[in-house]
Amino acid sequence: MKKSLLQKERSSYQPKLPKGLQGAVKVKEGAPTQSVSDREEIQKLFPNTYGMPLVEFVPGNEANHEAMNVGVILSGGQAPGGHNVICGIFDEVKKLNPNNRLYGFLMGPGGLVEHNYIELTSEIIDDYRNTGGFDMIGSGRTKLEEEDQFEKGLEIIRKLDIQAIVIIGGDDSNTNACVLAEYYAAKKCGVQVIGCPKTIDGDLKNDQIETSFGFDTATKTYAELIGNIERDCNSARKYWHFIKLMGRSASHIALECALQCQPNVCIVSEEVQQKDMTLNQIVEQIAAAVADRASRGMNFGVVLIPEGLIEFIPSIGRLIGELNDLLAAHGADYKDLDKEAQRAYILAHLSKENAETFATLPEGVARQLSLDRDPHGNVQVSLIETERLLSDMVEAKLVAWKKDGKFDGKFAPLHHFFGYEGRCAAPSNFDADYCYALGVSAAQLIANGKTGYMAIVKNTTAPTDEWKAGGVPITMMMNMERRSGEMKPVIRKALVELDGAPFREFARLRDEWAKETCFIYPGPIQYWGPAAVCDRTTRTLELEQQ
Amino acid sequence: MKKSLLQKERSSYQPKLPKGLQGAVKVKEGAPTQSVSDREEIQKLFPNTYGMPLVEFVPGNEANHEAMNVGVILSGGQAPGGHNVICGIFDEVKKLNPNNRLYGFLMGPGGLVEHNYIELTSEIIDDYRNTGGFDMIGSGRTKLEEEDQFEKGLEIIRKLDIQAIVIIGGDDSNTNACVLAEYYAAKKCGVQVIGCPKTIDGDLKNDQIETSFGFDTATKTYAELIGNIERDCNSARKYWHFIKLMGRSASHIALECALQCQPNVCIVSEEVQQKDMTLNQIVEQIAAAVADRASRGMNFGVVLIPEGLIEFIPSIGRLIGELNDLLAAHGADYKDLDKEAQRAYILAHLSKENAETFATLPEGVARQLSLDRDPHGNVQVSLIETERLLSDMVEAKLVAWKKDGKFDGKFAPLHHFFGYEGRCAAPSNFDADYCYALGVSAAQLIANGKTGYMAIVKNTTAPTDEWKAGGVPITMMMNMERRSGEMKPVIRKALVELDGAPFREFARLRDEWAKETCFIYPGPIQYWGPAAVCDRTTRTLELEQQ
Repeated sequence: MKKSLLQKERSSYQPKLPKGLQGAVKVKEGAPTQSVSDREEIQKLFPNTYGMPLVEFVPGNEANHEAMNVGVILSGGQAPGGHNVICGIFDEVKKLNPNNRLYGFLMGPGGLVEHNYIELTSEIIDDYRNTGGFDMIGSGRTKLEEEDQFEKGLEIIRKLDIQAIVIIGGDDSNTNACVLAEYYAAKKCGVQVIGCPKTIDGDLKNDQIETSFGFDTATKTYAELIGNIERDCNSARKYWHFIKLMGRSASHIALECALQCQPNVCIVSEEVQQKDMTLNQIVEQIAAAVADRASRGMNFGVVLIPEGLIEFIPSIGRLIGELNDLLAAHGADYKDLDKEAQRAYILAHLSKENAETFATLPEGVARQLSLDRDPHGNVQVSLIETERLLSDMVEAKLVAWKKDGKFDGKFAPLHHFFGYEGRCAAPSNFDADYCYALGVSAAQLIANGKTGYMAIVKNTTAPTDEWKAGGVPITMMMNMERRSGEMKPVIRKALVELDGAPFREFARLRDEWAKETCFIYPGPIQYWGPAAVCDRTTRTLELEQQ
Repeated sequence: MKKSLLQKERSSYQPKLPKGLQGAVKVKEGAPTQSVSDREEIQKLFPNTYGMPLVEFVPGNEANHEAMNVGVILSGGQAPGGHNVICGIFDEVKKLNPNNRLYGFLMGPGGLVEHNYIELTSEIIDDYRNTGGFDMIGSGRTKLEEEDQFEKGLEIIRKLDIQAIVIIGGDDSNTNACVLAEYYAAKKCGVQVIGCPKTIDGDLKNDQIETSFGFDTATKTYAELIGNIERDCNSARKYWHFIKLMGRSASHIALECALQCQPNVCIVSEEVQQKDMTLNQIVEQIAAAVADRASRGMNFGVVLIPEGLIEFIPSIGRLIGELNDLLAAHGADYKDLDKEAQRAYILAHLSKENAETFATLPEGVARQLSLDRDPHGNVQVSLIETERLLSDMVEAKLVAWKKDGKFDGKFAPLHHFFGYEGRCAAPSNFDADYCYALGVSAAQLIANGKTGYMAIVKNTTAPTDEWKAGGVPITMMMNMERRSGEMKPVIRKALVELDGAPFREFARLRDEWAKETCFIYPGPIQYWGPAAVCDRTTRTLELEQQ
């Protein structure tokens, strides 16, 4: 494997650990825990893994540990730092007993079911220290939900004499980790399951999990690019850049990037939803910023758009719902009509409110919503180029305003979508340290006989020494939610809270950002140099922990 | 102006200078020079600025300099380091005589003609040290070509008592700088004009100019992103990423990024042109790599595409030529026909070869080439999304091959275009040093009475101390070329040379890159840390200087 100069130099970085994990480790247990709601139901579903205490690791005395084998799985989308979690597990299990072995299941949870694995040796591990990507063992989106999957997994677990599995994933993967833990506990298999909080989206966080790993590096990478575009925008002074940012289920990424870069406009899906804003209102908000800046000679700006926006607009949600019904009941009646007749048919059969929403949509988007479905009959929202949809509609609005004398400027939009650019970036110092500590914690949870726990690290805005590592029972973070028509126990997803500190800071400043040019240019992630630059964390975390 | 943490720490970076510029400076002159060809014609066009010697700056003795005022202009597209050129000019003219003043003309060459300027004070300068962007004084694309522009400029030059203008720009801007220098020299205005070699495209280089500034930083920024995408590609193992890279007139950016990142395929426009490759051949080359990798279980990869590719494909060039004539002569005959009739009409009226080329094009592209013209009647090549065009055609090819049993895999393409992400990045240490040295050289050329020169710095793969700064007569780099139907004296543009070291290195390795997964992940630009990481220059320069 040929490596870049940076990789070579960076491979020798030794992640910093919290004091509690630096030497021998002792477990400090708290009081029994409860789930965040629906306590009775969740206790009933998880009789063996409910109510366990919070765990914190503090300095302890050396102890002898019997040899044990551990398996690790990467689940779902890539996030910077995943390799360091595995390195942390590896180093700690080898420290506990040099005869311990670590197995990596390949290409995600499917590797456990299909018995695809490798043993992770120090040669392999050393090649991946402080690197981005999940390519050490690959990842995948197979969901571990069925008993026959659990049983197939148990076969290889027995064969390799594995004592515990670590599943590194997002909210769903960790929910499933807990279901698996409960299953093996109920069957008294003697197999522990531990989770690790991964996702660049930042929506896996709560009182126990301060941040999911990868969010720091991914948002810094996007902020670097947004800052570069802002600087170009402010130099050329003739384009409006519409930048869509990955993350369908929450707007944490867009909000964090806005706090770092101070663009002229940033849409936050959760606000759109809570205020029941229409697509037209969003378009008017952007167009108003364009017109106002144009009136003062500034025909340029930057707009940030969260990838999931469309699904958060309540009126579009209601429209999609009725279109789904219409397609199911009458799709055959109109699918062979020509475009205009189709549009007329649909408009005639929709409720008044939804027909009005439908009528405001550009033709291409209207077609996608009414006709282009995936094999399951669902609208393919991810195919809608929201950044172009918005700029097209803003342009149409500005043309109308120009006729009315309300806009007297130029509007030249450019489009960007950032996602794959940041998911596999090499981890920042923060993510490198955080992930390594999560891995060491996971190994310690295993060594201390825990199952159904997620590894956690708290106090993360303090210096690394003062971080507090430990574990949280996964059931503690659960509630019951409707998923695919059924009530299920799941980890509650963290959306942007409008009364949270990050959004309030954004709301306090955004009018000035729209009027003036307040761009900030964060620049690329730095691994060496002043600590203020290299070891700073996200604005979101800083504001939340203030 | 609110600054990022990185900007704050980076502002105190003191660019390193070549020995010859570190203290008092003496001029070492070479023998008279000749233009690279068309010597008689160019000498006739530039009687006052032709044949001057090459200049090198070496350590000298302190001398008194009379006060002088200088003007500076940023011309054309942004490139990282432009602000450092201005900082270098500022520091040097103030060092020569603290009463010297530096004026910045605003929003490009138009600022000179329209008398828009500011005086650059140390407060302003200090805010922009080592920053990206051209926002200190803005840039623009007005071409200084007409005598009335020169005369309008002279008015403000006289009013501000300016002795010399520095024009920071690409090949055309520097050609025009020389025309301006000649004009003022012929009129004995006592106004000097100096150029500086700027362009991220890397196509302004020759025996005297080793590299244009900005190329290093921009390609490193793109390589960071390409590396991140490669790592994602190699982790998810299910997508083919088609990445288009800015730069219409040459493929230096794509080639440099390929050498840094080792993608599976990189198209080099100059090779396509020289080998008279058709669009279909390019598509087959990519499809062959996809099919071969698929046959070994690898349904993923990365393809780099230079933005200007379409214009370099000879058969497309011939087709566009004939379509231009057809549109002019018979456009009215077919413009109101329906799509199919239009296509039939065009096919019937084209020569056999061009009709065959036309027939291979997807419908959307065929329409763009035959009907969608800009106001001057030219095909809008920049609107063609080459990355999608190629992946669509590759997909069609693979569908056909699948039927023939020649392809048995999956093909899921994703698309990216990188340009604005890198043009305004904060300059790397290399560009920060190089630009600052160019600025200091420009000031010294002025102080030594030179005009019609470009500031240069050579030996740039050696440590900064050993760099050699000086000046080159712009006429020395000129030849006669047909531009808009007229023969004009211009600086010869540097295309990728197929017998040059960078392309030969690429050609030596590319078969292996296509077959295997040899991705390299360069990571973000580092400003602090090991010199191997922070001060390395481009692979192109390293290979050319070997």
